[in-house]
Parts: sequence; C-alpha cells; structure tokens
Amino acid sequence: MITAKARAVDGPDKPFRVAEIKRRDLDTHDVLIEIKYAGICHSDIHTAHGEWGPVNYPLVPGHEIAGIVTAVGAQVTKYKVGDRVGVGCMVDSCGKCENCLKGEEQYCLKGNIQTYAGVDKYGEPTQGGYSTHIVVQEDFVLRIPDSIELDVAAPLLCAGITTYSPLNHWGAGSGKKVAVVGMGGLGHMAVQIAHAMGAEVTVLSQTLKKKEDGLQLGADHYYATSDPETFEKLAGHFDLIINTVSAQIKLDAYLGLLTLDGALVNVGAPAEPLSLNVFSLIGHRRSFAGSMIGGIRETQEMLNFCAEHNIVPKIEVISADQIDEAYERVLASDVKYRFVIDISTM
Amino acid sequence: MITAKARAVDGPDKPFRVAEIKRRDLDTHDVLIEIKYAGICHSDIHTAHGEWGPVNYPLVPGHEIAGIVTAVGAQVTKYKVGDRVGVGCMVDSCGKCENCLKGEEQYCLKGNIQTYAGVDKYGEPTQGGYSTHIVVQEDFVLRIPDSIELDVAAPLLCAGITTYSPLNHWGAGSGKKVAVVGMGGLGHMAVQIAHAMGAEVTVLSQTLKKKEDGLQLGADHYYATSDPETFEKLAGHFDLIINTVSAQIKLDAYLGLLTLDGALVNVGAPAEPLSLNVFSLIGHRRSFAGSMIGGIRETQEMLNFCAEHNIVPKIEVISADQIDEAYERVLASDVKYRFVIDISTM
Repeated sequence: MITAKARAVDGPDKPFRVAEIKRRDLDTHDVLIEIKYAGICHSDIHTAHGEWGPVNYPLVPGHEIAGIVTAVGAQVTKYKVGDRVGVGCMVDSCGKCENCLKGEEQYCLKGNIQTYAGVDKYGEPTQGGYSTHIVVQEDFVLRIPDSIELDVAAPLLCAGITTYSPLNHWGAGSGKKVAVVGMGGLGHMAVQIAHAMGAEVTVLSQTLKKKEDGLQLGADHYYATSDPETFEKLAGHFDLIINTVSAQIKLDAYLGLLTLDGALVNVGAPAEPLSLNVFSLIGHRRSFAGSMIGGIRETQEMLNFCAEHNIVPKIEVISADQIDEAYERVLASDVKYRFVIDISTM
Repeated sequence: MITAKARAVDGPDKPFRVAEIKRRDLDTHDVLIEIKYAGICHSDIHTAHGEWGPVNYPLVPGHEIAGIVTAVGAQVTKYKVGDRVGVGCMVDSCGKCENCLKGEEQYCLKGNIQTYAGVDKYGEPTQGGYSTHIVVQEDFVLRIPDSIELDVAAPLLCAGITTYSPLNHWGAGSGKKVAVVGMGGLGHMAVQIAHAMGAEVTVLSQTLKKKEDGLQLGADHYYATSDPETFEKLAGHFDLIINTVSAQIKLDAYLGLLTLDGALVNVGAPAEPLSLNVFSLIGHRRSFAGSMIGGIRETQEMLNFCAEHNIVPKIEVISADQIDEAYERVLASDVKYRFVIDISTM
C-alpha cells in the first residue's frame, strides 16, 4: 500500500484536518500520480456537506487533479514515468455497457466510479485529489498538453469538460447565439470555450460586477439578470443556454429567452426540485436538458482544444490550510474564478 | 356577411346554447367552408372554462374542422367549390417572421391567429368549428385525402398533427423505442402514427383497461402506470416519450424511463407548473421538451401519411345537443377516443 498525505472532513459541519490515506498497490493497468494541484469544485462542497445524499466520512474530496506520473503498472501502455497527467470526476466504469462502448463513460449504466465518495472495483472507498498521491487505471487518466501549466490544468478536468461537452453536443458554433448563466468557475470556462467554438456569447450574471472579465474572456454581450429588462430585451433570442448555477433559478424566465428549438442545459445540479410551466416549452418547441461532465475521449479532446485556443481558467492558488476558508468564499461567490490547492503545502 | 348557426358558451360555468354568428364576406384569398364535422379537443374545454386565461365570451370552440368548400374568393388558386377540406388550430399568421418562413406558422413570432378565442387581422374575434360555416384564407386550409371520411378526418387536424409533429421532429422510426403516455384522443393517434413510422411502441396508461385497443392500434407493449413495477422494469428504456396527458404527472419518474439522450415531449399543457429534479436530466443527458401542433405544410404531410397508412381516429359521433355531456365525459376519460359533432344537427 502507498501512503498519501491528505485533507479530509469527518462530517457535514466539520473542518478539514490533516489525514493519512492509503492508495492501493499498482495493479497491472494502474498509474501512480504525484498530485501537484487540485481544484475546488462546487460539487466538493455539496458532497462534503452531505447535501447530495449520505457520505461515508472521513471524505477526501477533489476531482480536478493535475500531476506527474511517478510509477506505472506492469502492463500500462499509455503513460510513462514523468508524464504530465490529469484525473477528473471518474476513475473507472464498467466498460461494457452501451454507453461505455460509445465512449460516454460518465453515463455508464452500472454507474461510473467517482473519484471520491465512490467505491472502487476492489470494494474500497475512493478518495479524491486533496492529497499527495492517487492511483488510477490508465484508461481514466488524461494527458495534459505541454502548453498548459499544471495549476491551470486542474480545473479543466471538471469545470472545463462540464461546459465543453454540452457546448459540443448541442452544436455551439458559428451563427449560434449562446448564453452562459452564471459567471463563476464553470461560467468563465463556458464563455471562453463557446467563443473559441465561434458562437456569439452572452453572459447572464446576477450583476455587472464581472462584466469586464466576461468581455475580456470572449463574451460579446453581458447582462444583469437582476434587471427585469434583460428578460424582455432578450426574449426568444438564444439557440442554447448553458446554466452553470447550481441553485434555484426562475426557469420559465430563462426558457423564455430561447428561440424555436432552443435548449436550456443545466450543468449545475441544485439539490431542490425546480418548477416550470409547460407552456414555456410548448410555445417554441424548447427543451430543458441536463449534461454531466463528459466521456474520457471527449475530455482529452477538450484538453487539446483548450491548448490549441490558449484557454485556461483564471485561478487563485491556495495552500492546504485554506480549504475551509475557500469553501466559504465559493459559497459567497467570492472567487475569481477557481480555487486551486497547491498540493506541495499538504 | 354570412350567417352561421353555432353553439356558444357565455361563461366558464355556462352550458352551450344555440347561437347565430357572422362570418366575414370572402376576401380575395378566402374560402367558405360548409362544416360537416367538428371534433371536441381537450383544449376546447380548457378554453371554454377559462382555464388558460381570460376569454371573450360568447365563445364558439372547435379547431378540428372538416367540411366542403362552397365558395371561394376572387384570387383563390388552391381550392375550388366541392373540395373536401379541413381547418385546424390556426387560421392565419404573420407570414413574414423567421418561423413562418420556415413553415412553422404554429410558432409565429407575432403569434398565429387561433381558430377560436383569437382576433383576426380585421380585428374581429375568431369563432371555431362548432358551427355550420367558417371563412378561412386558403393558405390555412388543408386538403383531406379522398380515402379519409370527413367525420374521422376532423380529429386529425389537432390530435393527429399534435402527435405526428413531435414524432417526426424527434425522429421516431425504425430502431427507436417510443412510449406514449395516456391512451386518449391524442394518445391513440400517437400509437398509430409511431407504429406506422416503424418505431417499437409502448403505451403507458393509468390502467390496463384500454390494453386491447392499444395493441390493436399498433402498440407492441402496454403497461399500467398505477403499477410501481412499471417504472422499475422500464428504467432507461425509451428514446422518446410523448406525454399526451394535460395534467400533473410525476415527471422524475417518467424521465427515469429515458435512455441516454432521450427526450420526454409534452404535448398536453397542464395549467399548473410541473416540478422536476435536475438530476433526472443530468444523469443521462435527457431532455424535457414541449411541442405544439404543427405547421401547415407538416399538417398536410400528416394527412397524406394517415391516408397512406390507413390511420384514422376512433370516434363517437354526437349531436350538437350533446356537447355539454361530451365535455363531462372527456373530463372523466370516458370516451373512445374522440367526440365528433355532426354539424348537420346544429
């Protein structure tokens, strides 16, 4: 067994503490990664606080992982010691169901194995990236292009793919009007990616506080959703709306911004149900949809796309001691735009 | 002006009464139709009862109209006296917006002019098909194929196109698993059309009471939604679900029946908002969508498709005196499967 230093929580209201965790010895197709950086995702907070269902504590969150390969199993062919790699939200899947065979492992019919708060195929609980090392089978390891630094690479593994995948699937591109709801960790990635895909990009944020950043990242327009005129002015305007806000929103108002056959796609997952009026959909054959990260092949495609278009997140690097404080600041929307833990401070 | 005999209601709780209404003199592109049959749609009831917003009474409902052309305006080219024709849910639209230009007049950005409870371009209230005559401009008149009798043709103009259009748009066909929720006026059309398109068709009805009819109309499978096992057994099964029920349903349970990238399309429009958990969508990139009737070109395509595949509704012909009773029976789901008024009894 391999011992890793980590930061763990012991309950929904508990602070992070220093922990030692075990990583399995390398199986034939496993890769040992020395983690350099781990991003803090809103999902980490939902999970650590037990808001998405019961959790087996202690829990080590973290599914935006960037590091260096330090050992490989006997039959590993894809990676070698020294490679710059990443791990995202999942570390395994059945590999045999129709969705896995399509390369959509995130929708594995048996349930993919999540990077933390899951149970791996050996029956052990999975623990995430707020730690010095992780062991992952090679098919779920991503290659980080040389031009992307490891600190900014980390958030691509969740925030990047979570926004790239629906933009790609719903055909964001030249001639398409795309709105991004929320200018946070996911939103500021969606803006850059949609812009690079060729779409006309509008940010819909609560206020105009981050307008300058939004335009600098590639948005063509920026509106405050606190201003009711926004919803009148933009009625029937968008082909695609990516909603990155994982809280209650007034769905009918946002659906009203879609054109014929437009889709509002939620990538945020509020814990409470949302309510909508069916007339909001029927009137223009609109769709309300959801999307969850992306498959491994598409995640690699996203990393290469970001390298090609010089797309990286804006991050604030913190030390391991600052995780609790960072969580509070994420909940207060006080981060531009992603916290990344420097694992050397672990 | 042309005088027509009709049946009208004077308020949300009022019974139908005999009325005389005026139809405009024929404009250059108008067609005068002697109505032979008019179907009773659930929308008629919602509107007559004022459940979809304020109504200017007296109201003559009816947007499933079949009859014979008895006069044409000076410049009419599409129809001549004696032609067998139909009129559906709309009688005009702006003709200039991007949706009208696409042939999707039902989604006219200025709002199409509805067959009843609307205001026509002359500023007059529109009145529907529970009457002996109607004047409609030729572009919104459909040709009824010779092989379809006028009584069974009437419901195709709403129930037929309302189900044909989403089945067509979302690609029901060979290799696709399609569920139809609700075995009523719309549902029993959806079953026949989806079957003729080549899909594997499953009916999801509250009980098994109408199972024999469903299978005879082309359903491959028939399940009772009152049985909780139905939702376990069919989890993740369907590519497309057409929900014809215009009442509250447990959306999350039905969304759970969709496969990866599946869509649940509502064609019924409950007056109250529906609630759903975003996780039901995100987990398999599912969509919840809405669809409203169809464009004129697609409606003609549907009529021709029904003629080609010998698809007609099952109807119960009633006299004009029986409309109130028929409304009560529709609300009690006591109709197999569409009431059609014999206008000769008007």
